[in-house]
Amino acid sequence: MTLQQTIASIQPLDDDAMRAARARQDQLTKPQGSLGRLEALSVQLAGITRKARPRFAQPAIITMAGDHGVTRQGVSAYPAEVTPQMVLNFLRGGAAINVLARHVGARVVVVDIGVAADLPAHPELVNAKIARGTRDFSIGPAMTRDEARRAVEAGIEIVTREIERGADIIGTGDMGIGNTTPSSAIVATITRRPVREVTGRGTGVDDAGLARKIATIERGIEINKPNPNDALDVLADVGGFEIGGLAGVMLGAAARGVPVVIDGFISGAAALIAYTLAPAVQPYLIAAHRSVEIGHRVTLEYLRLEPLLDLDLRLGEGTGAALGISLCLAAARILDEMATFAEAGVSEKSA
Amino acid sequence: MTLQQTIASIQPLDDDAMRAARARQDQLTKPQGSLGRLEALSVQLAGITRKARPRFAQPAIITMAGDHGVTRQGVSAYPAEVTPQMVLNFLRGGAAINVLARHVGARVVVVDIGVAADLPAHPELVNAKIARGTRDFSIGPAMTRDEARRAVEAGIEIVTREIERGADIIGTGDMGIGNTTPSSAIVATITRRPVREVTGRGTGVDDAGLARKIATIERGIEINKPNPNDALDVLADVGGFEIGGLAGVMLGAAARGVPVVIDGFISGAAALIAYTLAPAVQPYLIAAHRSVEIGHRVTLEYLRLEPLLDLDLRLGEGTGAALGISLCLAAARILDEMATFAEAGVSEKSA
Repeated sequence: MTLQQTIASIQPLDDDAMRAARARQDQLTKPQGSLGRLEALSVQLAGITRKARPRFAQPAIITMAGDHGVTRQGVSAYPAEVTPQMVLNFLRGGAAINVLARHVGARVVVVDIGVAADLPAHPELVNAKIARGTRDFSIGPAMTRDEARRAVEAGIEIVTREIERGADIIGTGDMGIGNTTPSSAIVATITRRPVREVTGRGTGVDDAGLARKIATIERGIEINKPNPNDALDVLADVGGFEIGGLAGVMLGAAARGVPVVIDGFISGAAALIAYTLAPAVQPYLIAAHRSVEIGHRVTLEYLRLEPLLDLDLRLGEGTGAALGISLCLAAARILDEMATFAEAGVSEKSA
Repeated sequence: MTLQQTIASIQPLDDDAMRAARARQDQLTKPQGSLGRLEALSVQLAGITRKARPRFAQPAIITMAGDHGVTRQGVSAYPAEVTPQMVLNFLRGGAAINVLARHVGARVVVVDIGVAADLPAHPELVNAKIARGTRDFSIGPAMTRDEARRAVEAGIEIVTREIERGADIIGTGDMGIGNTTPSSAIVATITRRPVREVTGRGTGVDDAGLARKIATIERGIEINKPNPNDALDVLADVGGFEIGGLAGVMLGAAARGVPVVIDGFISGAAALIAYTLAPAVQPYLIAAHRSVEIGHRVTLEYLRLEPLLDLDLRLGEGTGAALGISLCLAAARILDEMATFAEAGVSEKSA
C-alpha cells in the first residue's frame, strides 16, 4: 500500500468494542477501577482491535537499523561500526532486545533499512536498505524526499507482511549509532522547542560532546529549514531511515487495526513523523516507557501519551516496547480470563 | 523456625555477588547503565541470592486471606462474606491474581490464615487459620500477642516450605474485606503519621465511609495504645492475621536468601511489621508498585523502597507483585543471557 492509501484507511477506534470491554471490566470480580491503567489499556486494545475481548498470541517487535552521516560531527560516544555489529548481535540472539523479547514471548524482526555496511544475507534479516546511511544533515539534507517516502513505505510493507503472517501486536525498536541526533532534530522541529531543551546525552557523550551535538543540530535545522507541517520534509532534511521506517510501521499497523507499542526516544521521534502525517494514528499508539533522554518527555506530551513504565531506560532496540507488550498482554488477559461476580458467586459492592 | 531464629539468620546482602554482577553488567553489549533500574535490580537480586548470575525458575505468590472484626464499624464498601467467596474464586482460577500469575509464570499459594468462615478442604488451599477473623480493634485488641506471633510464624513456616519445594522468588498478596483499615492503623502507628494522612478509600467507600473509617482507626489507636517500637504489639492491637502472616513470609524468605516482591498497601503494612521486627529484611524487599491508596507512599518512603511500577493499582491479592516478579525475571535474564562486548565482537565506547 502506498503512504496515502495507508493514511486513508486508518479508522477511529471502535466505540462498540470499547463500550463492551468497559462493561465487562465492571462485572469482573474486583472493585471497579481497581486495576487502574490495566483496565483503561484493555479498553483501548478492544477499540483498536474492534473486539470486545481481544486476545494476542503473536507479538512481534520490529527493530530497524540505520546509520547516520551526522556521526562525522562527533555526536556519539560509540563508533558507527557498532550499528552493523549490533545487527549481527541481534541475529545471534545476544542483545538486550533478544533477551527481553524471549522473556515476553515476542519475535524480533530485524530490518536493515539503511546500515552503512554490507550485511551478510541471513534468514532472519529483512533487507530493506534505502541507502548506506543518511548524509550528514549538518551540511545538507539527510536524504531526498523520495528516499523519505520510500523509508516510510518500507515500514508499512514490512509491518503489513508481519500482520499477514499472524503478528497481532507490534513493538517498535531501533538501532543506529548517532540516531538520538536526528531524533532531537525532529522533536525540536515538530514540537517547536529549542534544540537544547530536547537534546540529551544519547549513549553517553560528555559535556563537550553534548555542546557539539546541540550546535550540530541547530546548524542542520538552520541550513535545511525543515517545514514542521510537512513530515516527509522533516524526515528528509534531518531524519533517519530507521526513523522513517518506524513511522511507517506505526501507520501500517494502525491501518490494520493492530496496536503498536512504541519504545523510547527514537521511536518517539518516529511517532511524531507518523502523527504529523496522520493524526488518526494517535489512539493506536501505546507508549511503553518514559526514557531518560530529555526530549522524550516533550515528545510524549505532544503526542498526549502517558507511558506505562518509568524505569530509567535509554537503550532503544525495542527493549522498553517488549516490557510494554507484556503489560498489554496482561491487560487483555485480565479482561478475557477473569470471572464475573455472577460466574464466581461473589457478592457485589453494597449500595 | 521460631521468629527469633529467623530474625537472627537474616544476613546482609552478599557484596561479592553484587560486585560480580555489576562488573558483568558493564561488559554487556549496551551502553553502561542504559537499562536503568533493571540493572540495579539485577545487582540486588545477585546480592540477595548470593549468586553472580541469579536464575529464577519457580516464582510463587503467597496470598493470605483473613477477616477483620472492625468491618462491623462499616469501614468497607463490600460485605465481609466476600473474603471466603474470593478465596473460592482464587481456587477456581477466576480472580485477577490467577490471571496475572499465569501471565508471569508464577504459582499462587492461597492461605486461609484467619477467614471468618469454614472453607472446604481443597488440595490448593493451605489451612493455617489462627482464628475466625480478628476482633474489632476499635473496642479492644484485634488479637492476643500470642496470636500475633503465631500469625508471623505461620508465614515463616509456609514460605520456608515453598522454598524447600523449589520456589526461588516470592510475591506477597492479600485478601481480606476491611483490611485497609488495620493497614492504615499500622502505618499511622509505625510511621508516626496522623491517621487521616495515611487512610484512603480502600475498595471504594464514600466520603461518609472515609470519615467513619478514620474515626474508627483513631479510636482503635487511642484505646489500644500500640507501641510503635514493638511490632508484635502493633500487630496484636490493630493488625490482621494476613498482615502478620505476610510479615512472616518476608522474614522467612530473607532468612533463606530469597527475594520478596511486595504488593501494595496491605503488603506494605506487613513490610512495616517485618522491618520493625528485623531492619535487616529491608534489602530483601522489592516494591512492585505504588498503590493508589495514599498511605502506601508514606510506607514506601519509610521503608526506603522505590516502587518499580505506578499503574494506579489498588486491588491487592498479589496482582502488583505478579507484575513486579516479571520485571525481576527480566532483570535477571538480562544479566545472565546477554552477550558481552568481547563475545559479540562489538566495539566499546570510544575514549
